[in-house]
Amino acid sequence: MAAFSLLTPVFIGILCVFIVVILRSRGKSSNKLQENKKKKKESKPWVDEDLQDGTEILLNDGEDKEEWQDLEEEDLLHVPFAPAHYPVDEMVKRSKHFYELLNQRRSVRFISNEPVPREVIENIIRTAGTSPSGAHTEPWTFVVVQDPEVKHKVREIIEEEEEINYHKRMGDKWVSDLKKLRTNWVKEYLDTAPFLILIFKQVYGQLPNNKKRTHYYNEISVSIACGLLLAAIQNVGLVTVTTTPLNCGPRLRVLLQRPVNEKLLMLLPVGYPSKDATVPDLKRKPLQDIMVIV
Amino acid sequence: MAAFSLLTPVFIGILCVFIVVILRSRGKSSNKLQENKKKKKESKPWVDEDLQDGTEILLNDGEDKEEWQDLEEEDLLHVPFAPAHYPVDEMVKRSKHFYELLNQRRSVRFISNEPVPREVIENIIRTAGTSPSGAHTEPWTFVVVQDPEVKHKVREIIEEEEEINYHKRMGDKWVSDLKKLRTNWVKEYLDTAPFLILIFKQVYGQLPNNKKRTHYYNEISVSIACGLLLAAIQNVGLVTVTTTPLNCGPRLRVLLQRPVNEKLLMLLPVGYPSKDATVPDLKRKPLQDIMVIV
Repeated sequence: MAAFSLLTPVFIGILCVFIVVILRSRGKSSNKLQENKKKKKESKPWVDEDLQDGTEILLNDGEDKEEWQDLEEEDLLHVPFAPAHYPVDEMVKRSKHFYELLNQRRSVRFISNEPVPREVIENIIRTAGTSPSGAHTEPWTFVVVQDPEVKHKVREIIEEEEEINYHKRMGDKWVSDLKKLRTNWVKEYLDTAPFLILIFKQVYGQLPNNKKRTHYYNEISVSIACGLLLAAIQNVGLVTVTTTPLNCGPRLRVLLQRPVNEKLLMLLPVGYPSKDATVPDLKRKPLQDIMVIV
Repeated sequence: MAAFSLLTPVFIGILCVFIVVILRSRGKSSNKLQENKKKKKESKPWVDEDLQDGTEILLNDGEDKEEWQDLEEEDLLHVPFAPAHYPVDEMVKRSKHFYELLNQRRSVRFISNEPVPREVIENIIRTAGTSPSGAHTEPWTFVVVQDPEVKHKVREIIEEEEEINYHKRMGDKWVSDLKKLRTNWVKEYLDTAPFLILIFKQVYGQLPNNKKRTHYYNEISVSIACGLLLAAIQNVGLVTVTTTPLNCGPRLRVLLQRPVNEKLLMLLPVGYPSKDATVPDLKRKPLQDIMVIV
């Protein structure tokens, strides 16, 4: 006991050093973040070390290997593939026309309440559904809101959160950056547009045995599908504005009764432009600023 | 001193409890990760709390507010916008035809060396460049590789990394999942395709004063642009396969002499399908599995 008492200051000293070391390593929170990411990545090697897709990190680790044994593992049948082969001039002409069509697309915030045939909406969503996806998981859900009351509830949620964003959460930077685009948190188009399409990414899927199936690259896949959706909307002469409602995902998910594996990625109000619609006079970068030939 | 000695077990007890608490909170590394993310997000409020786009987190925090003062802050001119207004039947017909066109798209891994007019490639990249982007930053660079030697170097880098991925980094899960698609790490199409398009996302931009400009939602924006690119490729009768080469980004960036703010998002080999091209006999989800009407 005497020896113990004698060594007490030494014990306390060692413990203090230990605590300081732990606290210092916790203090470097950003380093720690990257460290954690790295660790995570080592156990999830399909996440590109350079790509840093945050969505993969959200996946639960609790998956058993067995869940994959239930998947059909034999090779799928491979079938010949011979698509249309256009003569060169027709190809050039088609590429030019498609560019001209899509180059007329603008983000439009003034949307008329003129009705749009539901069949058109169904076809543009079918089109988006032809998108490629990581391991052919097709990790998307397109929620089409046409009920005026639900549209209005969506608007209320988004405007509430946007106002908070503008006044409290946003730095001056983002606000001044958006000033150029004359955006504010009043979004009338959420009531007037005949359809709102809310695009959810499925961060994981459900296997028949109720276990989770990883959806590789789900955010990139669903964003590509949104690109096809935008092209399809433009192709029929309708307009939209690409929005990613800040911090509204959880409330909108609950409102629309989507399951927990779905997260809101984008919201597109779709309709005809209103008669007095205007757009900011933005220019696009010329080809030489976006393309490099090697 | 006697009192101190008397209290020693108490001190040590308190210290031990303290250490246990700290270690336990560190042990929950995934909780910690989310905590850190939350902290990060509070200082970068334009990142949706639900969206978790990892790319935003990579941005440097060293930006000054002043950098924004160099931006033109006055409102842009707003101009009237009146796009094509098709009669309803034509609209329905157009939506159907566009769906049929894109529904014929397949990911093709067998690409012929038949030459493709450079003008077509330029037009499809122009088309991709019409994509919307966060705060109109247009954060994309399309590197088109046509030089056979450079294509072969790209192939070498990708096959080397892929082989490592397959043998070492990958879990059994991903490998068995891909087995269905008969993919392996030999990618002949990287030599045979007349063009490789490497799509880089610019995670930040450079302001005239040499400071950094945040690129909001750069990964989502560039992925949407890739969606338009895929539609444009399909529209001219060419084929591609959507690839995100694992862990090759840094080496390919150096090979192609791209600046450090650019990160490889995707690689698309583009050309005609080879005569004996096959595709796995995959089906797409029907409309009722991807669309919900409210």
